Amino acid sequence: MVNIGDLRASYERISNYLVETPILSSGNLNKKFEANIFLKNEVDQLTGSFKIRGALSALSHLKSHGVEGVVAFSSGNHAQGVSKAAQIFDMKAIIVMPKDAPKNKIEKTKGNGAEIVLYERHVQSREEIAEQIAKDKDYPLVRPFDNQQIIAGQGSFGLEACEFFLANDIKPDIVLSCTSGGGLVAGTSIAFKHYFPDTEIYPVEPLTCNDTQISLENKTRTEIKNHIPTICDALEVEIPGKLTFPINLQNCKKGLAVSDKEVCQAMKYLYEEFNVKSEPSGCVSLAAILSNKIDVREKNVLVTISGGNVDADSFDKYIDSA
Amino acid sequence: MVNIGDLRASYERISNYLVETPILSSGNLNKKFEANIFLKNEVDQLTGSFKIRGALSALSHLKSHGVEGVVAFSSGNHAQGVSKAAQIFDMKAIIVMPKDAPKNKIEKTKGNGAEIVLYERHVQSREEIAEQIAKDKDYPLVRPFDNQQIIAGQGSFGLEACEFFLANDIKPDIVLSCTSGGGLVAGTSIAFKHYFPDTEIYPVEPLTCNDTQISLENKTRTEIKNHIPTICDALEVEIPGKLTFPINLQNCKKGLAVSDKEVCQAMKYLYEEFNVKSEPSGCVSLAAILSNKIDVREKNVLVTISGGNVDADSFDKYIDSA
Repeated sequence: MVNIGDLRASYERISNYLVETPILSSGNLNKKFEANIFLKNEVDQLTGSFKIRGALSALSHLKSHGVEGVVAFSSGNHAQGVSKAAQIFDMKAIIVMPKDAPKNKIEKTKGNGAEIVLYERHVQSREEIAEQIAKDKDYPLVRPFDNQQIIAGQGSFGLEACEFFLANDIKPDIVLSCTSGGGLVAGTSIAFKHYFPDTEIYPVEPLTCNDTQISLENKTRTEIKNHIPTICDALEVEIPGKLTFPINLQNCKKGLAVSDKEVCQAMKYLYEEFNVKSEPSGCVSLAAILSNKIDVREKNVLVTISGGNVDADSFDKYIDSA
Repeated sequence: MVNIGDLRASYERISNYLVETPILSSGNLNKKFEANIFLKNEVDQLTGSFKIRGALSALSHLKSHGVEGVVAFSSGNHAQGVSKAAQIFDMKAIIVMPKDAPKNKIEKTKGNGAEIVLYERHVQSREEIAEQIAKDKDYPLVRPFDNQQIIAGQGSFGLEACEFFLANDIKPDIVLSCTSGGGLVAGTSIAFKHYFPDTEIYPVEPLTCNDTQISLENKTRTEIKNHIPTICDALEVEIPGKLTFPINLQNCKKGLAVSDKEVCQAMKYLYEEFNVKSEPSGCVSLAAILSNKIDVREKNVLVTISGGNVDADSFDKYIDSA
């Protein structure tokens, strides 16, 4: 299991490359909920999401063990993270992406110097393709969450947040974290449980893909099959990770879930009140507060705003439908 | 004249209330200009712009001298800054705003607990009204830039940026700062000239209201009368400040100016590449680079993104016209 020492060792390797993202607050929001709400804004992170944290952690670890290249499959933020980390550490990256991935995401990944392998989403398995390439090239496959170094790297988000609370002498009562495979919440929970054992940690998911919520209720990894699609495309993992789930089962209070409509309303609020443009997946934690999924009255609350990679037209559409 | 000691004393008083705003970079932008470009993002600052820095500085200074209330005139970011600072330091704030100021700006200022006095923009002088109130109430009038404590407070932006360059062992070659009355660039230049005397500092203005550029050329404060309006509404001051100009004359290389079209293009670029929503005035420094107003090749460049307070509809209009 990953521990606080792993987080610190990882942070030592990667902090120079990270943006120490700011923590935002608003008198209006605090007044509305009679709470102290702190938003840590990973929209400002290198590559536009927290995923670079884990990627830098994993690749720097591999590099120090003589590895010269990696393979990953992702159409989204993990692809940006791995390709950027590979560029930073002068490694080769081969990224398997669906042919119909947004053009700008393919371009950005290429722009980071990665080699792109495209596949037909409905015909081929990206995992099989990636595994075959990894075997042929003798490169490790870097998975988006089920990897100790990834979890330790995402934990840097939690370390920075804890430092903020320690420096300002504030006791955090609640942490709300967007959750897909569970890497961010697992890493973050390790930091919080070390510095603030009483903090309650809640993973937040889309209502139609709430596998972590259900798995925590069942106390065992539970798969959601054929879930109804959600605008939170980065959170559509259907079963919690093998490595992340035991950590989250130990550290998290329970799961929360929000509807797409609630996510759009949160995106709009964040944009109007904070001038921050979040992607849908980046806004589920704030949505949980705004839609009263949790009582935060008189609490100190950390909210993860996990990323902002959504194209302008889609963003406008989501805001308009709020 | 304000000096580095004033900046440090001010920062001591205000840093607890500030967001230490992040410094962003992009491989694509750096590649495009063969430079290392660092954007310090004040969109994330409390109240959505750097203006809170100066306001906190001025009001904490007044408070420590027994002052219990202040008067200011502003329809924009200075109003947000002064009202928020007054709320933080438990002081009374009376803000003189035009009757036709955007409703959300009036609401936000009220939300910070300020008393609003509205005036008819084309009939009355806001300065006279504010001075009268200040006299009646025996409160000081807090001007937006011609105030030593304001300059020292805006300098905290420069202090934080210098700390970043020092920590990362980078020598900044160029600083580009948006400029209205010149408070931000004056304060920032004091920090940079202390830590990095060779850094070249350039104020950037809208093309039709380039009073600092002309004043620097003339080596004397020169007024621009009846300038053509610009979308950079926060930068429409027509003559440099009495206190700020001597500092800027000493510390700045020369002024730069950009068109509204170039500002819109920069806003669009910033939004698409960094997911950051800037107001027009906040984007003039980046516009100066993108429109080749200055050669940044092989340089380390700091760019101020000074604020993000623009309503969503106007933002979309500017982006669409880029």
